[in-house]
Amino acid sequence: MMNFKDYLDTRVKRIETFLMKILPDEHQEPTQLHQAMRYSVLNGGKRIRPLLVYATGEALGTPIALLDAPAAAVELIHCYSLIHDDLPSMDNDDLRRGKPSCHKAFDEATAILAGDALQSLAYEILTNFSLNPIEPHEQIEMLKVLTHATGVKGMVGGQALDMASQGKGQSTSLDQLRTLHQKKTGALIEASIQLGRIASGCADQNQWAALQLFGRSLGLIFQIQDDILDVTGDAHTLGKNPGKDVKQGKVTFPSLIGLEAAKKQLNHLYTQAIEAIHNLAPMGQELLEFTHLLARRSS
Amino acid sequence: MMNFKDYLDTRVKRIETFLMKILPDEHQEPTQLHQAMRYSVLNGGKRIRPLLVYATGEALGTPIALLDAPAAAVELIHCYSLIHDDLPSMDNDDLRRGKPSCHKAFDEATAILAGDALQSLAYEILTNFSLNPIEPHEQIEMLKVLTHATGVKGMVGGQALDMASQGKGQSTSLDQLRTLHQKKTGALIEASIQLGRIASGCADQNQWAALQLFGRSLGLIFQIQDDILDVTGDAHTLGKNPGKDVKQGKVTFPSLIGLEAAKKQLNHLYTQAIEAIHNLAPMGQELLEFTHLLARRSS
Repeated sequence: MMNFKDYLDTRVKRIETFLMKILPDEHQEPTQLHQAMRYSVLNGGKRIRPLLVYATGEALGTPIALLDAPAAAVELIHCYSLIHDDLPSMDNDDLRRGKPSCHKAFDEATAILAGDALQSLAYEILTNFSLNPIEPHEQIEMLKVLTHATGVKGMVGGQALDMASQGKGQSTSLDQLRTLHQKKTGALIEASIQLGRIASGCADQNQWAALQLFGRSLGLIFQIQDDILDVTGDAHTLGKNPGKDVKQGKVTFPSLIGLEAAKKQLNHLYTQAIEAIHNLAPMGQELLEFTHLLARRSS
Repeated sequence: MMNFKDYLDTRVKRIETFLMKILPDEHQEPTQLHQAMRYSVLNGGKRIRPLLVYATGEALGTPIALLDAPAAAVELIHCYSLIHDDLPSMDNDDLRRGKPSCHKAFDEATAILAGDALQSLAYEILTNFSLNPIEPHEQIEMLKVLTHATGVKGMVGGQALDMASQGKGQSTSLDQLRTLHQKKTGALIEASIQLGRIASGCADQNQWAALQLFGRSLGLIFQIQDDILDVTGDAHTLGKNPGKDVKQGKVTFPSLIGLEAAKKQLNHLYTQAIEAIHNLAPMGQELLEFTHLLARRSS
């Protein structure tokens, strides 16, 4: 087995090659739209969601060629959401990974359209048999999972809850905060794991339940660590300024229950996630390492 | 056979009932997002695309219950595009059908998210067997058609071409203008007809080709008549101010080839459309009447 760092490197390279291939040609009309889409997707992202699709699918013995399309689809959804979230009327972020955000590099109209087009493209590649060579009923299962995780019950619903909660501070309950994050970031993390499972054709109910619990824990781990880093991280390692959540009056886990309790919660979820997929080992080694990485990351 | 007006009335009522059912509950969190989605979809639109799904499917003998989901899906895509097109950085329209547009009735962030969520919902209902009770491979065919018609090769691509062409005036060629409209509005019109055909399970290659030609002509008919009305229509009947295209420096068929030539082109396309589906008659009676309606409409 290759070491985990090599695993990550090869899979990141693989998904970027695939994304480069499926994104529209920037020399073709409408060029600016195509450029904006490529600019925002091929921007050196961490590719956490695609990696989760690969790690889950491979843990279940899936040929890697069946994982490219779902890995790309979930990443396109993630990228569209970042473009729209950065818009002036949303989070108003001028920078994304140290470079001008899409509406700054291009313009607002182009950014809105690029996000819109990335959303259609995500679903379109799942319907394309030459990119996603699985049975139609499995393609439909993927589309069901991804549209659900993206819409009002998932990411977009979470973003709306987030906007509504800003400035409300302590009037948000811990349950509400969990729901918000479960939708806003957790839903796509969970979907990534489900997509990997669907590609595997795995119908084992126990494994299915285990992966669901794993995904649920991992989504929250990701967000709590994000919140903790906003308090404890430094700008250089983060690649963005910490303290932004507090400045925007956002409710976070540390602001609601304190930094120590948030760390404790994170550790609890970490144990829960690891235990959930214990039975997948040694096939699930990459998933275990991945969980460790997300819970301990410094950026 | 019921008369055409009754046909339209019953089908419009039917799709609105269906849309009301599938849109998220506005009393559920996030309430504002759900309200914005319902506000923008249940706004008394003409429902041209759903009507085309019904008329095509019914001409091919499809049970009407198989047409609701695709009819709703294409309408949700259309509505999401109107919300985003109205945004300040796009066409900056404060009014839509005489009422405040979504970002005016709510706010820009909510309008962006409502559009985004309507796009996911459109595809999601096609994957739902209880709403769209057809085989998975047919559901996939619908999703393939609709995602393609929505993305860079269709509606969004057309909108980007439109933004890029503004102010370019006479430097746009007739071919470019046709391509722009074929994508911006034609793609969804064509998709509506294809969706009706897919629901019918019709695999007859001749009928398929005929409907494709019909759809292609109808899309252009729709747009040319739109352009003509912008010159000849009156505000009261249109429900919006005519002359807007000219004011925005938009290239239109009349501005490019003259009003009379545009009318001649419309008549030519009308004949072409009618001839294309001639063999479907008498089953295609509603499609014929519909074509007449679109070519002769005054609003």
